[in-house]
Amino acid sequence: MTTERPAVLQPEMPATRWGDPAHATGLPDGVRELVGLVFPIQDTPARTDVAVPASRLTAEHVAGLRALVGDENVVLDDGLRRQRTRGKSTPDLLRQRAGDLGDAPDVVVRPGSHDEVVAVLAHAAEQRIAVVPFGGGTAVTGGLVADATGFAGVVSLDLGRMRGLLALDPVSSTATLEPGLRGPEAEALLAEHGMMLGHFPQSFEYATIGGFAATRSSGQSSAGYGRFDAMVVGLRVATPAGEVRLGSAPANASGPDLRELFLGSEGALGVITEVTVRVRPLPEVKQYEGWRWASFAAGADAMRTLAQADLLPTVIRLSDENETAINLADPSGIGGEGSAGCLMVVGYEGTADAVAAKRAAVTAVLSGLGGTAEGAGPGEAWAHGRFNAPYLRDSLLDVGVLVETLETATFWSNRENLYARVKAALEESLGEGTMVLCHISHVYPTGCSLYFTVAARGDDDPLARWLPAKAAASEAIVAASAAITHHHAVGTDHKPYLTAEIGEVGAAVLRAVKETVDPAGILNPGVLIP
Amino acid sequence: MTTERPAVLQPEMPATRWGDPAHATGLPDGVRELVGLVFPIQDTPARTDVAVPASRLTAEHVAGLRALVGDENVVLDDGLRRQRTRGKSTPDLLRQRAGDLGDAPDVVVRPGSHDEVVAVLAHAAEQRIAVVPFGGGTAVTGGLVADATGFAGVVSLDLGRMRGLLALDPVSSTATLEPGLRGPEAEALLAEHGMMLGHFPQSFEYATIGGFAATRSSGQSSAGYGRFDAMVVGLRVATPAGEVRLGSAPANASGPDLRELFLGSEGALGVITEVTVRVRPLPEVKQYEGWRWASFAAGADAMRTLAQADLLPTVIRLSDENETAINLADPSGIGGEGSAGCLMVVGYEGTADAVAAKRAAVTAVLSGLGGTAEGAGPGEAWAHGRFNAPYLRDSLLDVGVLVETLETATFWSNRENLYARVKAALEESLGEGTMVLCHISHVYPTGCSLYFTVAARGDDDPLARWLPAKAAASEAIVAASAAITHHHAVGTDHKPYLTAEIGEVGAAVLRAVKETVDPAGILNPGVLIP
Repeated sequence: MTTERPAVLQPEMPATRWGDPAHATGLPDGVRELVGLVFPIQDTPARTDVAVPASRLTAEHVAGLRALVGDENVVLDDGLRRQRTRGKSTPDLLRQRAGDLGDAPDVVVRPGSHDEVVAVLAHAAEQRIAVVPFGGGTAVTGGLVADATGFAGVVSLDLGRMRGLLALDPVSSTATLEPGLRGPEAEALLAEHGMMLGHFPQSFEYATIGGFAATRSSGQSSAGYGRFDAMVVGLRVATPAGEVRLGSAPANASGPDLRELFLGSEGALGVITEVTVRVRPLPEVKQYEGWRWASFAAGADAMRTLAQADLLPTVIRLSDENETAINLADPSGIGGEGSAGCLMVVGYEGTADAVAAKRAAVTAVLSGLGGTAEGAGPGEAWAHGRFNAPYLRDSLLDVGVLVETLETATFWSNRENLYARVKAALEESLGEGTMVLCHISHVYPTGCSLYFTVAARGDDDPLARWLPAKAAASEAIVAASAAITHHHAVGTDHKPYLTAEIGEVGAAVLRAVKETVDPAGILNPGVLIP
Repeated sequence: MTTERPAVLQPEMPATRWGDPAHATGLPDGVRELVGLVFPIQDTPARTDVAVPASRLTAEHVAGLRALVGDENVVLDDGLRRQRTRGKSTPDLLRQRAGDLGDAPDVVVRPGSHDEVVAVLAHAAEQRIAVVPFGGGTAVTGGLVADATGFAGVVSLDLGRMRGLLALDPVSSTATLEPGLRGPEAEALLAEHGMMLGHFPQSFEYATIGGFAATRSSGQSSAGYGRFDAMVVGLRVATPAGEVRLGSAPANASGPDLRELFLGSEGALGVITEVTVRVRPLPEVKQYEGWRWASFAAGADAMRTLAQADLLPTVIRLSDENETAINLADPSGIGGEGSAGCLMVVGYEGTADAVAAKRAAVTAVLSGLGGTAEGAGPGEAWAHGRFNAPYLRDSLLDVGVLVETLETATFWSNRENLYARVKAALEESLGEGTMVLCHISHVYPTGCSLYFTVAARGDDDPLARWLPAKAAASEAIVAASAAITHHHAVGTDHKPYLTAEIGEVGAAVLRAVKETVDPAGILNPGVLIP
């Protein structure tokens, strides 16, 4: 087929905030008042008076890059360089708001094809220019902050021109997508063929296919459709050492599965230029509903029962008591009437028959375990607001409240231990008045993720308050023998904790692979590899 | 918990044959006559008069090993060395039968723990002794044939003493198993707790947990319970560079998934000393039945439909027209009355309710697609004989008929192309009268495996007839861009084709990992790594 391209492109995000400014409504007055009852409120507008540092690249470097991808695709514009600085973690936003542009890339380069990526990497290796692959810019663990030490400068390798559906195989039910496609763009292209990917992380509206693969993203429908890495059957990767094409079959015994080495490689082992994924028919029916549980433990046990019976719905998420009370699922409800127990959202998608059958079976299990059906209301409220939390975070940062999230995963028998340790670490670090909310949103037969949202006083320097809290939480995760990240990736923020998880030999293996595919070390230096 | 050990150990296999001699019944006279109508029959008994070559290891080497694992666990006995020579592929058996013991290990070493494995590896690295991890000895792709060039000798590192259930986590539904446990032993230990693994490859009765992991085995219930690699959540591996412990959570985003690097590593990157797997409750009900399809294509399309609807039963396998006619599913039926079309075996396991619900849904799909229900008979016949094919192979080799299997996998849209190419390559190489049978026994939403059984005249030198046929089939697989192996692993037999599948960069990555974890190159030299 001819490459198909999205009719409508997602807009760019602003440098200092999440999302589409038109959708950022700010805190309604009533909510602001309620927040003020808990936290000191002070308007903290972002500084916009700080200039982007001058590009360190020489005219020759720039001319060399222009020769490879065309003049118009080598952009030195300060606005774009400011926008391509870091990702969207709270520390990233706080630094941007404070006018810290020390991590600005020196140039934005926009290759239009795999071959152009290859050419840029070769040039960068020769000229010792660091290359930071950039998809949607939604990174939250410092994956866009390369260490420029020893390099002539940093290229932000913007994959936004590589935004096509390259192939659709209706028999195998696979699609080959370019890395720069954002979530809604990919879904729109597939929907033209009656298909979908079904990957809906909170960053869905801005994150890209390449980013999903490079960070092992996991979406809100992971119970039904799987993690992104589990959807991938093939990859094409440009590395300084040459091309990698993987995916001879859905699964094989042809030695180690090297797809699993480039999935999660975070731009440090290559630039993913094509991703072949399993696709599915668009669901006829989508049905979301709420269930209430006496406790987080009771709800988690119900999730575990479903997962171990291989009876998972499409969506299943459970808020702990605090999150249920705050009802983050519907930001407009913040501070609303506290509700007892823990809310679970359960969603079913598929053919009408399949949804009816699955819903009947799941309902029987949940009822039998003591859950209380709460009807469609909570499910629809969640579905309506499912991508909105980052907007609320901006609004809270605007009034000086520190808000951030972090996540981890473990086996079921370690869930309570992990939960208690991380919660205690955050509360102890951030002090009185800190709110720690948690939900489980990704479940497996053997374990689950835990996703924490933290709100605390920002005081004069919210970044200085957050960094030790994040370190304390990370140390608690390591102490609990859990995963330092379930779906946010390693980046630079989690790198100090990776060796504890994969061991010294594992770290040495990653370094050896890095040296093999990227001998000059230009790819995302400082990211991921211990 | 205290380590639990199997009450009954599987017996050892003979050097020149598969399985338990008590179960080897030979060809019944009637079957022999029927085989004789197709192939020239000549009794070809195995030679037993050839001595095992003298061990190349010095008394000092042996004393060094004895100091590490105890005198009784360093075995120079010719019988054991003969038995530990190669695996159970047809070429392996033909070489053994011909008295070719050139690949005999110089000593059999039986460590009793992870620490003893570590000690043996350190000693071997220092003394430049090659180490071949040995589990059940069921390898069929030359994975037990290390290249001794440049080494003082070869240790067969027999994991048969490491045969325990180390831990069972009923909450997480995981079990930690030692690598030397054979399939039935592991299942017996788990059954004491009401649990099972559910991994039943044809080699089940003899193959080991470590081997399943090291070769990415896939069992006959893969549709319901998954491939072995998909069951693994944690690994402990002894490498010459140190210990590797992986598995912080069922899934994570902590960079590349290094479990997937040691799964399928075939003893070349380390010795797997512990495997933590998902386990399940023992099924209340097991129900197997037959379905008939007008053609292989029609049956394959039905499998595809089920897989893409996420509606797979526990077992699903489909024989092509030739295999259906021969009815390999029931060896005693060989040459029996030819039956039209293609036989599919469909099996359901689980709770009574789950089986009933799944069976109703699958039956509706299969009926709707034109399948004909054949009742329980064919399903039960298959279940009864499911591990018997290797015995039949021995009996056919005994009378000079060449029999071997090979397998591959691809995406659904490439299935017919792959099938036609491999079949043609085998028929062309082996000439008139060759029978090529095929079945699909592992299916995924995006593709499936193809498992071929070949029977041909053996003539005077069946090995010389098979090797070019295998090469032709392998080249056909590569030409079809399929996987050189779906579940038999790479070993030495498939190594020449691996680079075509993973690319030069992929091959370089494997070499770099090998050099990192095994700098002296002692682990299974010549196996897997291109």
